[in-house]
Amino acid sequence: MLTFSENAMSADHQQERLDANWIVGFVDGEGCFHISINKINKMTLGWQVLPEFRIVQDQHNEHILYKIQEYFGFGTVTVNRKDHHGIRKEFRVRGLKNLNQLLGFFRDHPLKTTSKQQNFELFSIVIEKMNKREHLTQDGLDEIAEIVSKMNRHPRLKYLESSETIRQTPK
Amino acid sequence: MLTFSENAMSADHQQERLDANWIVGFVDGEGCFHISINKINKMTLGWQVLPEFRIVQDQHNEHILYKIQEYFGFGTVTVNRKDHHGIRKEFRVRGLKNLNQLLGFFRDHPLKTTSKQQNFELFSIVIEKMNKREHLTQDGLDEIAEIVSKMNRHPRLKYLESSETIRQTPK
Repeated sequence: MLTFSENAMSADHQQERLDANWIVGFVDGEGCFHISINKINKMTLGWQVLPEFRIVQDQHNEHILYKIQEYFGFGTVTVNRKDHHGIRKEFRVRGLKNLNQLLGFFRDHPLKTTSKQQNFELFSIVIEKMNKREHLTQDGLDEIAEIVSKMNRHPRLKYLESSETIRQTPK
Repeated sequence: MLTFSENAMSADHQQERLDANWIVGFVDGEGCFHISINKINKMTLGWQVLPEFRIVQDQHNEHILYKIQEYFGFGTVTVNRKDHHGIRKEFRVRGLKNLNQLLGFFRDHPLKTTSKQQNFELFSIVIEKMNKREHLTQDGLDEIAEIVSKMNRHPRLKYLESSETIRQTPK
């Protein structure tokens, strides 16, 4: 038999627990699968591939970011931007281990908007390549840069514009 | 026993049907409860209260707006904006009958983000007042304008700035 406080906790938990479908809907609206390719000289090829998943919210809604973190059991809640408009927070997932788990979730519970699903699929292809360590080879890095350049709202990739890269991978 | 085509339709329907929790999540991200107060001279008080619910998406995602419309069984999908960036579409619900149904849905399936839930509650108060035809009285209209001015992202209300209104409702 549950004690009063266990009952209360259980009721609380029941009430507060997020639903997988709610998360999919929220991510269809607010989630962002993002990959940056950063110039870092000390790395073998001089470039780092940094995939991350983000949900950005006004600070008033940060409670929901913590609930999402609790649901997944990984990721961090941190400041996204702080300016005269106020503070924006983000739920962020980095690292192949966590990102692979996240991809598993969205394979089991597919996104429903065309644009987010397409972005998710491109993101998944890059993660699969990174699982096979292809981002550490020149050919793999070139392929990843091509995929990333097709992702939504992606800023111009310095990697593709770099004269160094162009010299290394003539077409 | 179902025929092949009934089976196929049933499977299609099953696959395509939106889930209430997905809708709540998507609206927590992308939905907008909006009320405008428009100067229309031919109306008794000279002002029209126009509440509406909107979900705006890039045209690539318009399929999801039609699915949402199908789920609710009311509302329209129409052009939101058309410019050099492309076309944006919106799912829009107007009219007290439909809006009351919509409010019923979000009472049964509460929004989870603080900001959207607060906006929903203010929107609901205005709809309740309109159900009682309070927007047709000067006092009711003033109260509605006060509530609307507390809603998120609301542009300055011409109604509250109008010298005519200020003369009519001295403080």
